[in-house]
Amino acid sequence: MRDVQSERDSRRISIDRVGVSDVSYPIVVLDQKENIQHTVASVTMSVSLPHEYRGTHMSRFIEVLGEFQGRVTLSSLEHITEDLRKILDAECAELDFSFPYFLLRKAPVTGIASYTRYDVTFKATKGDVFDLVTTVVVPVQTLCPCSREISEKGAHNQRASVEISVRMKGLVWIEELVEIAEKNASAPVYTLLKREDEKFVTEQAYNTPRFVEDVLRDVAVALEGEERISWYRIRVTSNESIHNHNAFASLERDKTRSAEGRAECLPGGAGK
Amino acid sequence: MRDVQSERDSRRISIDRVGVSDVSYPIVVLDQKENIQHTVASVTMSVSLPHEYRGTHMSRFIEVLGEFQGRVTLSSLEHITEDLRKILDAECAELDFSFPYFLLRKAPVTGIASYTRYDVTFKATKGDVFDLVTTVVVPVQTLCPCSREISEKGAHNQRASVEISVRMKGLVWIEELVEIAEKNASAPVYTLLKREDEKFVTEQAYNTPRFVEDVLRDVAVALEGEERISWYRIRVTSNESIHNHNAFASLERDKTRSAEGRAECLPGGAGK
Amino acid sequence: MRDVQSERDSRRISIDRVGVSDVSYPIVVLDQKENIQHTVASVTMSVSLPHEYRGTHMSRFIEVLGEFQGRVTLSSLEHITEDLRKILDAECAELDFSFPYFLLRKAPVTGIASYTRYDVTFKATKGDVFDLVTTVVVPVQTLCPCSREISEKGAHNQRASVEISVRMKGLVWIEELVEIAEKNASAPVYTLLKREDEKFVTEQAYNTPRFVEDVLRDVAVALEGEERISWYRIRVTSNESIHNHNAFASLERDKTRSAEGRAECLPGGAGK
Amino acid sequence: MRDVQSERDSRRISIDRVGVSDVSYPIVVLDQKENIQHTVASVTMSVSLPHEYRGTHMSRFIEVLGEFQGRVTLSSLEHITEDLRKILDAECAELDFSFPYFLLRKAPVTGIASYTRYDVTFKATKGDVFDLVTTVVVPVQTLCPCSREISEKGAHNQRASVEISVRMKGLVWIEELVEIAEKNASAPVYTLLKREDEKFVTEQAYNTPRFVEDVLRDVAVALEGEERISWYRIRVTSNESIHNHNAFASLERDKTRSAEGRAECLPGGAGK
Repeated sequence: MRDVQSERDSRRISIDRVGVSDVSYPIVVLDQKENIQHTVASVTMSVSLPHEYRGTHMSRFIEVLGEFQGRVTLSSLEHITEDLRKILDAECAELDFSFPYFLLRKAPVTGIASYTRYDVTFKATKGDVFDLVTTVVVPVQTLCPCSREISEKGAHNQRASVEISVRMKGLVWIEELVEIAEKNASAPVYTLLKREDEKFVTEQAYNTPRFVEDVLRDVAVALEGEERISWYRIRVTSNESIHNHNAFASLERDKTRSAEGRAECLPGGAGK
Repeated sequence: MRDVQSERDSRRISIDRVGVSDVSYPIVVLDQKENIQHTVASVTMSVSLPHEYRGTHMSRFIEVLGEFQGRVTLSSLEHITEDLRKILDAECAELDFSFPYFLLRKAPVTGIASYTRYDVTFKATKGDVFDLVTTVVVPVQTLCPCSREISEKGAHNQRASVEISVRMKGLVWIEELVEIAEKNASAPVYTLLKREDEKFVTEQAYNTPRFVEDVLRDVAVALEGEERISWYRIRVTSNESIHNHNAFASLERDKTRSAEGRAECLPGGAGK
Repeated sequence: MRDVQSERDSRRISIDRVGVSDVSYPIVVLDQKENIQHTVASVTMSVSLPHEYRGTHMSRFIEVLGEFQGRVTLSSLEHITEDLRKILDAECAELDFSFPYFLLRKAPVTGIASYTRYDVTFKATKGDVFDLVTTVVVPVQTLCPCSREISEKGAHNQRASVEISVRMKGLVWIEELVEIAEKNASAPVYTLLKREDEKFVTEQAYNTPRFVEDVLRDVAVALEGEERISWYRIRVTSNESIHNHNAFASLERDKTRSAEGRAECLPGGAGK
Repeated sequence: MRDVQSERDSRRISIDRVGVSDVSYPIVVLDQKENIQHTVASVTMSVSLPHEYRGTHMSRFIEVLGEFQGRVTLSSLEHITEDLRKILDAECAELDFSFPYFLLRKAPVTGIASYTRYDVTFKATKGDVFDLVTTVVVPVQTLCPCSREISEKGAHNQRASVEISVRMKGLVWIEELVEIAEKNASAPVYTLLKREDEKFVTEQAYNTPRFVEDVLRDVAVALEGEERISWYRIRVTSNESIHNHNAFASLERDKTRSAEGRAECLPGGAGK
């Protein structure tokens, strides 16, 4: 049977990435308490393709995925990307796993537990070196300092999200990033709150007004001070309750580069 | 060229609906001030198919759509469905246009105007009689009465939506349904608010606490009292700022049926 | 602490459904081989509310959800809805679990296994009686009979989906509904196919041309003949590869009603 | 009234971007034939924020948007970003308009016209210099060369999309980018095709088999040869009809940099 993909290509154009995307697959991840968590990932897998090959062999991505039986850990991410490089004879392999991750959280007063969902992405790239970006999206609440200041009573508040991406020098657990995000918002959100808890959270938010700029900066201070983190990107998005659009703030810092700490005016900025 | 669709089918199964969906098309609609509004619709068009035909002719849906040059009015909806019935020799034709609709709204104190988006759907069905369901989704704010009552200061509030669907005996403008939804929430949302407006809206919401149940009932009272409306369905959904999930309430009433006003325990209820 | 929700309401409007929606929660389901499958559900829970109460107690939905520790089976669905009715003193309780469900499937020639994702929904309603609608969405391939017939070579084909909803008199497994959908399409889809498999599937589809109308009717014949099913609704949607929109066909049949088998021209038809 | 946003901030963290996102707004754009096209945009507007300010004034974004009355042209994009910089006293301003854009297209044999939707984004950044990235997503059809080669009859084909982003030295119309994408796929897609057209398109695709890698490279050749384009990024995504996931290929080239034309193994590659 002819292998069309392996034929020579004469257009002299190497391809940055070729692969499969939006593969929905059951995976297992390890949490901080060493427990196994079953979840469902959206997977993207790709390699670079030298100019002389017409195509890559897409089925091999899924074969490699199957071989790891859905076990997603820091070491398996490096192994999978390394396997992809070898099997597909590529200079570079990349892997994205995006999945919901649940933590059992206690309501602040009654202590009743319920699961909160966090959205996690691992983006692993393997060329000469291995690179891993871990992202977690944490739902929180923000309460507007301006609205509180100028209004006689009340203050508009709303659901917001804190997206933290990091590169690590030492292991940082998802649970730690979640805690940084929740501590620096006006209040966390919970799946289950009894009335005493609702009173607590309402007052906590009222007493902790935060612009998206505030949340962003406080999270940045925490990440800047964490030695295990070498690079980070933060985006805080607030689903403004007085508008039908969102407010957001974002920044990106590479601690390994010059320490100016100044935002550059590059297209895309810290965002996309 | 063989007409496969027109061949006889022997399975003896008539089809309720066959057609095209998710057709993105530019349309023009008329607003209450008799102005033309250009927008973009997601269109679904279908007919019933008798058991003896193998298939329908899908291209004719798009041809009919083109003939009307995107003009969507109450009378064109009836004409389009009637044309579909004739051209496709069908007992029944159905048409859905879903589109964003913009109204210029003034901020409550400064009076500065900006556009607010409302999502509108016309669902037209033509069999022996013509039936039209008009739906509008209105973004609003809700402020929780319980949170306000039990907390020393503040109250959680959030973006919410009021979805109103109606069948009419007399013409009711989208603008009128928008007004009913906005009047009965804790506060409307606006695209542009200056600080004075923000103070006003924050206080308005604090002084008008509303559960989703409250908004639902007040909207129901308004629709019940409106003689031009013969049937309605309401769904209020609140993006709770203390949770990462929503609260909702829904009901459906047919004024032409028995006036019990009692919720039936039928699967699906008023919602879906 | 004041219980605002329990206060009397004077608007005399009973509410069909009030509750929580879009709750993301980890669940476990049992598959046909008696294995446990961990997955993530989007959950909606609601009750009817008599006219005299101002509101329902939303936190109790989540408490009930927690008590069942995410175990979703036919019997737990009845228990949860019955518990909700009692705890919230409601005539009617409703529960929706929507979740991805994975089956290990073998490629047709090489037999290599990979997971395919199916989207399942259980909608349980408990009033005087218990009602359950099970829905599964099955990705498949359709190849156009008209395109094949009129073209010298090739035929357009595309990814499509078969959505089957049923009410049961006897237990029907999700796996059985999946099989009915896949058997009656032009070909199934697979996550992993080697070249021999790709050849097989391409030829299978070419030799099994199917309009959405054909898939719909063949699935209907299978469901009609299955005694354990008392009611069904089918929707076949094809992501036409020659258009940027979809073709669809839908029907709904209640075997317990008159056996005319004729499509009625009611608004909404079999669809939504 | 206190201006909380203007207060001094002591955290010494400058912010890359702060602003509003997901603002839905009616806009008008100019097409190549000098006609005005009304459409609906999703708008993001942001500025950089020096470390000494606590917050930005979000309402001013919407005011600036309103002043331009939705007129989106190359020159208005530069004016809007420049205005934002001045009004908000920022080093850097950024603006994203994403909107559906329609072109009237003729079916290949019958010549009957219908609208095809293309998704366009303008991303404008203004610091010391003005930067503009124009992106258009073009729906097309791909037919698999491997499937065609190894199968006795037929070949799997599917809807795909070609996303082209460019920076320009001279004006390139959206219509030109659309043409480049459609010419280099297996076939374009059309909203309206009669049977003669369907035959043509089916045969055209069968006679023009293309991997995502092929489409990517042919589009790259065209963009490389176009002097008005100084930088480009391409992503081709194919909704594989034999799988429930996608195949994709991507690359990014900056003509102003070294002419190696080799893919680098940087995280994210050409994509995101």
